[in-house]
Amino acid sequence: MNAKNSYQNLDYENLPNIKKFTACDITQKFNPTGIKEPMIDFVFPEIPFPPKNFYEELGEEKIRELVFYHHNLMRKSAIGHLFTHEEDKFKIVLERTADFFLEALGGGEKYSSKYGHPHLRARHFPFTIDEKARDIWLMFFKKALKDLDVPKKYIKAFWEWLEPMSLRMVNRRTTMEMPKRYPFETIAHEFGLGENNEK
Amino acid sequence: MNAKNSYQNLDYENLPNIKKFTACDITQKFNPTGIKEPMIDFVFPEIPFPPKNFYEELGEEKIRELVFYHHNLMRKSAIGHLFTHEEDKFKIVLERTADFFLEALGGGEKYSSKYGHPHLRARHFPFTIDEKARDIWLMFFKKALKDLDVPKKYIKAFWEWLEPMSLRMVNRRTTMEMPKRYPFETIAHEFGLGENNEK
Repeated sequence: MNAKNSYQNLDYENLPNIKKFTACDITQKFNPTGIKEPMIDFVFPEIPFPPKNFYEELGEEKIRELVFYHHNLMRKSAIGHLFTHEEDKFKIVLERTADFFLEALGGGEKYSSKYGHPHLRARHFPFTIDEKARDIWLMFFKKALKDLDVPKKYIKAFWEWLEPMSLRMVNRRTTMEMPKRYPFETIAHEFGLGENNEK
Repeated sequence: MNAKNSYQNLDYENLPNIKKFTACDITQKFNPTGIKEPMIDFVFPEIPFPPKNFYEELGEEKIRELVFYHHNLMRKSAIGHLFTHEEDKFKIVLERTADFFLEALGGGEKYSSKYGHPHLRARHFPFTIDEKARDIWLMFFKKALKDLDVPKKYIKAFWEWLEPMSLRMVNRRTTMEMPKRYPFETIAHEFGLGENNEK
């Protein structure tokens, strides 16, 4: 975190000059006069990328395995319809997603050399992703990290990247509430970890 | 507009402290290091309610006619699937929507006495409404205002309420761009009006 990242101190719940839908007073009486103030939906929080040594330390095979395992869980889930049934095409999706993870974790331009900038939000627009679909994506990633025994020392940084990143894919809102946050502190115990990633 | 409405001077394109997806530099190279900054999608602009004398001047019958005409246009359109095929249920939707318009235009608590606060955004969550669906809703309202010969003097205030209000119903995003704005100035000529609602 450097001095430039002043947004790290931003109070999302109380942005100056603008109100959020979550702050609506739902007990208020309807009064269709005057001017209804401008609003925003919610703030997509900052995303800290994981350290670049993850690729070297975890290894390409493990990272690919993680992506494959995660996608196979999703495919059999309530959001399975978001994935193609054609094996060949599914394999292409898997490879491309793995390339993204490899690059993000320090494996060089495995993704961007082939596909350019990920623009994850834009790339997911063809698929309806609501808050629940994002929850499923994230919970299955947690399961994958556990089931594949990703070493404990990587979990915190991995999670703190995945969790806010997954929010950017939400393109269908079904509630006035902000999508649920899952801070590492709330899942650490599932990995036998304390709040600071310590055993 | 009173002194309280300082948001009237808010520069939506450059909110202090927070960036919008529309401001993304899509030519930037992917660089998965450091922290990706927090973002918002777009600002739902303020909504000026129309004057309360519209109800008395236009009359209940004309306002109900407008709502019925508009809904019948939508029902036969690309967003027709959003409306029920059952005549009885459709009629209930029509009556309820008309009650909302009547109340908003000064007809007393015709809506809220029966249904409470409209909470239009929340009420529309069960229906997938993307930017295109909102365009259709709005363009058919323009057509209804024209086809039913709503007196020219009401058009500007009507439109400047409908246009930003329709944005609040968008719950499925399919683009990084802000949904299109349709300022009155850009449609005035379709009603044989100048930019200030003058013939």
